[in-house]
Amino acid sequence: MRTVIGVMGSGESGDKALLAQARDLGAAIATEGWVLLNGGRNSGVMDASAVGARNKGGFVIGILPDEGTAAASRHLDVAIRTGMGDGRNWINVLSSDVVIALRGGAGTLSEVALALKAGRTVITLDFELGVAFDRYSRTHKLHRAASVEEAIAMAKKALRLRATAPLHSPVGSPTHDRAARHAGSITPPAEERSS
Amino acid sequence: MRTVIGVMGSGESGDKALLAQARDLGAAIATEGWVLLNGGRNSGVMDASAVGARNKGGFVIGILPDEGTAAASRHLDVAIRTGMGDGRNWINVLSSDVVIALRGGAGTLSEVALALKAGRTVITLDFELGVAFDRYSRTHKLHRAASVEEAIAMAKKALRLRATAPLHSPVGSPTHDRAARHAGSITPPAEERSS
Amino acid sequence: MRTVIGVMGSGESGDKALLAQARDLGAAIATEGWVLLNGGRNSGVMDASAVGARNKGGFVIGILPDEGTAAASRHLDVAIRTGMGDGRNWINVLSSDVVIALRGGAGTLSEVALALKAGRTVITLDFELGVAFDRYSRTHKLHRAASVEEAIAMAKKALRLRATAPLHSPVGSPTHDRAARHAGSITPPAEERSS
Amino acid sequence: MRTVIGVMGSGESGDKALLAQARDLGAAIATEGWVLLNGGRNSGVMDASAVGARNKGGFVIGILPDEGTAAASRHLDVAIRTGMGDGRNWINVLSSDVVIALRGGAGTLSEVALALKAGRTVITLDFELGVAFDRYSRTHKLHRAASVEEAIAMAKKALRLRATAPLHSPVGSPTHDRAARHAGSITPPAEERSS
Repeated sequence: MRTVIGVMGSGESGDKALLAQARDLGAAIATEGWVLLNGGRNSGVMDASAVGARNKGGFVIGILPDEGTAAASRHLDVAIRTGMGDGRNWINVLSSDVVIALRGGAGTLSEVALALKAGRTVITLDFELGVAFDRYSRTHKLHRAASVEEAIAMAKKALRLRATAPLHSPVGSPTHDRAARHAGSITPPAEERSS
Repeated sequence: MRTVIGVMGSGESGDKALLAQARDLGAAIATEGWVLLNGGRNSGVMDASAVGARNKGGFVIGILPDEGTAAASRHLDVAIRTGMGDGRNWINVLSSDVVIALRGGAGTLSEVALALKAGRTVITLDFELGVAFDRYSRTHKLHRAASVEEAIAMAKKALRLRATAPLHSPVGSPTHDRAARHAGSITPPAEERSS
Repeated sequence: MRTVIGVMGSGESGDKALLAQARDLGAAIATEGWVLLNGGRNSGVMDASAVGARNKGGFVIGILPDEGTAAASRHLDVAIRTGMGDGRNWINVLSSDVVIALRGGAGTLSEVALALKAGRTVITLDFELGVAFDRYSRTHKLHRAASVEEAIAMAKKALRLRATAPLHSPVGSPTHDRAARHAGSITPPAEERSS
Repeated sequence: MRTVIGVMGSGESGDKALLAQARDLGAAIATEGWVLLNGGRNSGVMDASAVGARNKGGFVIGILPDEGTAAASRHLDVAIRTGMGDGRNWINVLSSDVVIALRGGAGTLSEVALALKAGRTVITLDFELGVAFDRYSRTHKLHRAASVEEAIAMAKKALRLRATAPLHSPVGSPTHDRAARHAGSITPPAEERSS
């Protein structure tokens, strides 16, 4: 199974520096041989990161909010059509081994938060979140990179930690406490219980 | 159709002052005649707000992450079982006419962000989010209340605005640009495109 | 927690006898004191069953495919807005303690199949499914009723069986094998593995 | 964007002839240059079709019901982790340009029904559904193939029809009536209203 790096960020296309950064990030992900996963639309960070990856021969999967492909980026290899609107953000982060977030609005913030909830390592690139996220920086699940190069280095480190993690709780896998959701009688541990 | 107020917050049960606040909020929501909607689990803000509402004769709906009811609060009237884990957070906020968030972790942050993405008015109660959310305070979609009373007053105001909003784009309804998700050819407007 | 009976059926409004049956079924569910859950739209079996239940003072929850309430039945007490399209069919059946299906098309067939997959008892009313479903009739998970009265009697029996089912695997609860989805290493049993 | 063929079928591994057929189907899909999409688990038709495709150098995407990859087939290129249980069946069919179903239980039946609801062409392989599905055979959305070769020929024909379909309503795209879900005031047409 191939390593999947999720790139989250705004769908707005007005900020040219941000789009250039998204292209560079997509290219760097492809150069590492990783699959790029994003929200799949034909605009903003989604489209730009897909272009960057494809230019380097990378493979791009878009997880569309839509039932069809009319608003999809033309630079996807495969379009997963969820028909779930922003409900698909949960799938975006679960399906990524590491999440990298560029500047964005409420949608991007929801993906950062959901990724942390799912136990993923999150790397923000030039994107300040604020006090509510501080606890995740302290526990080393949330990192801030100043450049694409630093973000890639941080992702590599997170992937190495994942490969050596104890059985049954790798980054990107179900933690055993999740079983409480389905097991019937076990009280879920504190982190799981957070709504 | 009855007015639904969503209460989001931590599933951790350690902070007694927070739980007391959740109970008071649940009671105040029931006193207004509103339906209380929360994440449905038997712990933390979810359980406490349900208890508060039920004590005042209120109606409580829990949107469970689970396929079954083994971890559900005993104080729900109806348990919606999604089996979607934290993917159900999107349903929590879509189904709420106004969202009130108490202090919580990544799950709560995801619900605040998703609610803003869906165009819901969000009221935080004693809960500081940080710089990434500032733009939503400026556009009056995000408010911070210092007390349960103030939160209820803010919710009333948001509901009044919703009742007088122009046809086809009330708070809590699909904005017409959402149709782009399904219509085929229209380029979604900037806000919709945010991932 | 209140007992929830799911009513599934066509959204088409052309068959007046079918709509009358849906109204009678809704009324009978309300008379039993059960909550009626359906797909929430303002047409066909959804709307008619809601009318029937409300006329008898029942409580009606609609699980909408939409993000908003513009296409919702006016006879709902609470509208759960999923924004998931027909992906919400899974939630419809998980949230129902027993599922009753009236004649319908592919959507209704999907709900019958999903309900059986989730281990729910399914009762069809004047609705022949065909050979692919025979195995579920043989294992007494799928029943065919000739009248509303018979459907209600069958639902009562299924609810009694559920109440006396062994701990951890009631009808309408997570079966323990479901835990495999989250536990890490366990090979899911055969039934769970069916795609 | 690459063409995606969804293969649905039982997760049970007892029927060796069925597994051989799934392997042959996977191989034939890869030979056509199509991406194979399935439910992603390490058993039954899911695993066997993945093996077949990979042996021919194909690309395989699994849409897992799980939050992690512990129960995933080792023959996937990319694992989409939904954490939605069988709620992911909707995503399976939306993301497939054509759906081919092998013999299976309630899960497979739900995917056939959901695919028809989504307007996808469905081809069953040695799998009799029964009377409730007859209307879809009559309207040429549902076909029965006697062999892998015939199924591939039928899929090719469906893909050709899709390529020449009128703008805005290709197979695998949102039909314009779907916009009603989000547009506010339009009454959805009859087919859309089916629950």
